[in-house]
Amino acid sequence: MPREPQSGAVKLVGAGPGAADLLTLRALRAVEGAQALLYDALISEEVLALAPAGCLKIQTGKRAGRASMRQETINRLMLRLARRGLNVVRLKGGDPSVFGRVGEEVAFLAGHGIATEVVPGVTAACAAAAQFNFPLTHRGQARRAVFTTARLEAGTLQADWSAAADPQATLAIYMGGGAAEELGARLVAAGRAASTPALAVENAGSPWARLTRGTVGDLGRLVEGAKGGPVLLVVGEVAALASDGAVGEALDQALSA
Amino acid sequence: MPREPQSGAVKLVGAGPGAADLLTLRALRAVEGAQALLYDALISEEVLALAPAGCLKIQTGKRAGRASMRQETINRLMLRLARRGLNVVRLKGGDPSVFGRVGEEVAFLAGHGIATEVVPGVTAACAAAAQFNFPLTHRGQARRAVFTTARLEAGTLQADWSAAADPQATLAIYMGGGAAEELGARLVAAGRAASTPALAVENAGSPWARLTRGTVGDLGRLVEGAKGGPVLLVVGEVAALASDGAVGEALDQALSA
Repeated sequence: MPREPQSGAVKLVGAGPGAADLLTLRALRAVEGAQALLYDALISEEVLALAPAGCLKIQTGKRAGRASMRQETINRLMLRLARRGLNVVRLKGGDPSVFGRVGEEVAFLAGHGIATEVVPGVTAACAAAAQFNFPLTHRGQARRAVFTTARLEAGTLQADWSAAADPQATLAIYMGGGAAEELGARLVAAGRAASTPALAVENAGSPWARLTRGTVGDLGRLVEGAKGGPVLLVVGEVAALASDGAVGEALDQALSA
Repeated sequence: MPREPQSGAVKLVGAGPGAADLLTLRALRAVEGAQALLYDALISEEVLALAPAGCLKIQTGKRAGRASMRQETINRLMLRLARRGLNVVRLKGGDPSVFGRVGEEVAFLAGHGIATEVVPGVTAACAAAAQFNFPLTHRGQARRAVFTTARLEAGTLQADWSAAADPQATLAIYMGGGAAEELGARLVAAGRAASTPALAVENAGSPWARLTRGTVGDLGRLVEGAKGGPVLLVVGEVAALASDGAVGEALDQALSA
């Protein structure tokens, strides 16, 4: 394992999907030891409350479709705080290595001689699967899982969906809310059956998560009721297994037995 | 969030990649409250030691290439223990929804009226990325990540690698050790450049993890030194960013400054 960075280092930490008890112990200790905390807009109040009283907290506000601090500004800020000798924690929703731009931040800091450590987290697709009782891979139904986004960094819709044609691939599409209808059409054009089960999960993994079920042909409708939180789209046969009622129903049955 | 299952329920819990501090708080509480613990061969002693003294611990020994309890036996065992009114924890390495067969276990238990709750975990690909400082997605280099296995359940090598041709896809191939050489040939045949950077990570995310670097054309060589632990293969431009020395080097620099 990497040695514990001393003061003047930056930890890039995955906070998981929102609920504070889905932090790893390593992430919890990093937050509890932070002297400066730079956090994304998706980090919950419950998680932020774990930082010590004297900790400098700075929201960087990175969120799809909203004004946010530029990446270069965030990089410079981390560098400045680290050079003051502070224990800097860069807190990101989910896992930093999955659509978290951690590669850019690590490269920048390493280029300036700042020690970094990345702490992994529970990514949104895994959190949604656990919360709503469907697997991402499943014997005979899903032999791989593809984690992707709807749009490229420039904002244009991704063009190459050939990987989506495999009927045994589960697609987990991060930040898929704004592009769902057009995306559904592209997946069908790429060869995925319009009847393939699909889900939209808003705020996956948080206590206020919201599940909507349908099909790929129907993807636009699934996000109609979304309230502005990040939306994960899931496409594949496994989506048919999703439920938010099974736990409660089975529990009621167990308790009354 | 699902209500807390009472006695007679089964929690299917992701233990993360091996280090006990990469458990989530929710997983830790589940293990600490377990009356019966069924665990895979990859669960570390450090994690097992967190279970309470009176807890019944049963190794199910599921591990690629080794004799293990049959899935049907595991299912029946969970059912029997839950019907005795015990808090049963089914502990799996990584995240239960990614190659963890959680779908089969949830379906079996739900079909017998047993309440289940899935607790997500840090999956091996995210753990390896954090530990060795490379991202799974990266601006301009990797716009998606594909989580797959080398072999199908029947033991035959997966045939369809068309999704692997995308030069902007990072492939994370779970349990890839035994098939690495043949797999490399198939990826190249599917259109991936033989010069594409690749990694083998044995025991990803654990303190005894081992990184080997090379290319897709070289995949067989990368696993030659493997010592029998599970091997994650990573294929894609991001693999060139991997290092196990950067943290230590930058830290030395920071401390001597």
